[in-house]
Amino acid sequence: MKVNGTHYRTVWLKNGIVNLIDQPKIPHHFGILEMRNHRETAIAISTMIVRGAGAIGATGAAGMAQAALEAPNNSFDEYISTAADTLRHTRPTAQNLFYGINYVLQAMTASNEVDRKRILAVEAANAVADEDAAACQAIGHFGSELIEDGMTLSTHCNAGWLAFVDWGSALSPMYVAHRSGKKIFVLVDETRPRSQGSRLTAWELGQEGVPHAVIADNATGHYLKSGEIDMVIVGADRIAMNGDVANKIGTYTSALAAKANGVPFYVAAPTATIDPNCPNGGEIPIEERASDEVQYAWGWSDSGEFIRVRTAPNNSDAKNPAFDVTPADLITGIITEKGIVNPSLVSSLAPKQ
Amino acid sequence: MKVNGTHYRTVWLKNGIVNLIDQPKIPHHFGILEMRNHRETAIAISTMIVRGAGAIGATGAAGMAQAALEAPNNSFDEYISTAADTLRHTRPTAQNLFYGINYVLQAMTASNEVDRKRILAVEAANAVADEDAAACQAIGHFGSELIEDGMTLSTHCNAGWLAFVDWGSALSPMYVAHRSGKKIFVLVDETRPRSQGSRLTAWELGQEGVPHAVIADNATGHYLKSGEIDMVIVGADRIAMNGDVANKIGTYTSALAAKANGVPFYVAAPTATIDPNCPNGGEIPIEERASDEVQYAWGWSDSGEFIRVRTAPNNSDAKNPAFDVTPADLITGIITEKGIVNPSLVSSLAPKQ
Repeated sequence: MKVNGTHYRTVWLKNGIVNLIDQPKIPHHFGILEMRNHRETAIAISTMIVRGAGAIGATGAAGMAQAALEAPNNSFDEYISTAADTLRHTRPTAQNLFYGINYVLQAMTASNEVDRKRILAVEAANAVADEDAAACQAIGHFGSELIEDGMTLSTHCNAGWLAFVDWGSALSPMYVAHRSGKKIFVLVDETRPRSQGSRLTAWELGQEGVPHAVIADNATGHYLKSGEIDMVIVGADRIAMNGDVANKIGTYTSALAAKANGVPFYVAAPTATIDPNCPNGGEIPIEERASDEVQYAWGWSDSGEFIRVRTAPNNSDAKNPAFDVTPADLITGIITEKGIVNPSLVSSLAPKQ
Repeated sequence: MKVNGTHYRTVWLKNGIVNLIDQPKIPHHFGILEMRNHRETAIAISTMIVRGAGAIGATGAAGMAQAALEAPNNSFDEYISTAADTLRHTRPTAQNLFYGINYVLQAMTASNEVDRKRILAVEAANAVADEDAAACQAIGHFGSELIEDGMTLSTHCNAGWLAFVDWGSALSPMYVAHRSGKKIFVLVDETRPRSQGSRLTAWELGQEGVPHAVIADNATGHYLKSGEIDMVIVGADRIAMNGDVANKIGTYTSALAAKANGVPFYVAAPTATIDPNCPNGGEIPIEERASDEVQYAWGWSDSGEFIRVRTAPNNSDAKNPAFDVTPADLITGIITEKGIVNPSLVSSLAPKQ
């Protein structure tokens, strides 16, 4: 997608360097960070310089390509194995991370020559990125058919192009609908504690000229109940084989409120998000992040500095689960690059193991 | 309740001055502000120096007493009428505000003498405060019977003693249970956009030594679904005659998630919160507050200054409904100073008009 008129992807590999949009500085600063080896790339994932299911997947794959380029000839396999472990342990929930890493590992098995393996790894990392971008564009076309002129849509967190390589999942149908001339309005959940909705989704929508307003996460249920939201579209970090969906904390209550008020609730995700090894949502590990994300809020001061402010008392603890699981029966449909399916049928679209 | 060992009420009238705890500065600073006339008192309500149903009611009553003390002999009734209008228009949702103002107006009708009216007004304002404190204490005793040793409780916003004159509504049963030796743990919803849970409820619980943790509002549904919450107790800003309850935005989704997971959901409120003129929740006006509350977060910088930080892009609008309505059928019971009733029976406890 375009930023001030220039097309960018969220992540790209060039000359062994992983380039990442500096997401923590959006919306008040747009810049690119360079990760010079796979360890730096791993840190970028764990510290959430890059975040979002598809973007993490492509970054994990690119980190594996870096590892292949770095690995010494005489301990190539050991180095690769350790690097894969390092990258796998950066974030626990997003299925795409494991998909991207495994994609590169699998591609390298096509040759026994180390130099050829390095080339295969780079090609595979680029393929993961291209596949993600193409899948998200297809999601946009399928999903936009659901969106009617004049609709108000709700979304949670950021499942836009910043969360993928390009286009996004939940926002892609909105972009396609908007570009096709449909008038839409988007209510953007702030998405505490990290405010990805307020910071990233609102910024993305603004760059594309899509009319929108930010609301506190607490207000979503109220707007669903009052009939002001026609449809909810969210992303997914992992989809279990029974159609249960792990996504950013707060997705579950939005789905409950949509169901209670008869509002369609869609999950948009590339099929790479489906975990063939996960029978149901109860099996998905839920990442517990640091308590200071809840005790503080981060943003820009009136003098333009990016700082944190503490709201909670100094002695008060906090708990910070990053994801929740939405049961399949609360989900109207799952929008994938292969079409829109009932969540009960999603296992048929799972990646081959 | 006690602050660092000294007993305070949230609001008190002394020598014509309305004294208020400076709530926006809690938890990082504790101080008292003096409102020298009814117009200053009105500003304190509208700017939320004082907030919370019962505290607003007592402050509105105290403001009316100030007006009675200020009113010129030759235009007493006109001055009082204008002052009542000024105070009524400070906040639209909390029933207790109108209750407190009307209580003082009604008391003044007992005499035709202006000097006697002034005394009656001050007595009435003090009576509103005393009644609120006594009601909240009784709520604590009734509600604490519901709380079992070892329970984890959830609450939203601040319905503690800072929201009333003393004790609080939703937190009062927790205080009584804790003082009686029951081991409880409280998960405190942050309550964006104004973070009353993180700032005020967490501080209150800390002052009383009640173990607790702050969570993002988004996490409440997850903890209800995972079985980690045994009971929800929230406050109310207005209760309709059919048992529908207006309370801080986000209460509705918490109630939905409690119902979906079989967790008891209680509303705690003095009967002064019941609006005899309001047949159902659809009739309750929902205050829309300024968009900057959502676009920014307020807190203390690392250098100890109370400042705001902006999360939303500069060009992004925000919407900010302050309350939502929880339908009676999601509420297990309403804890009042007269006992615990099914919401369908709450009209029998409404104040006489």
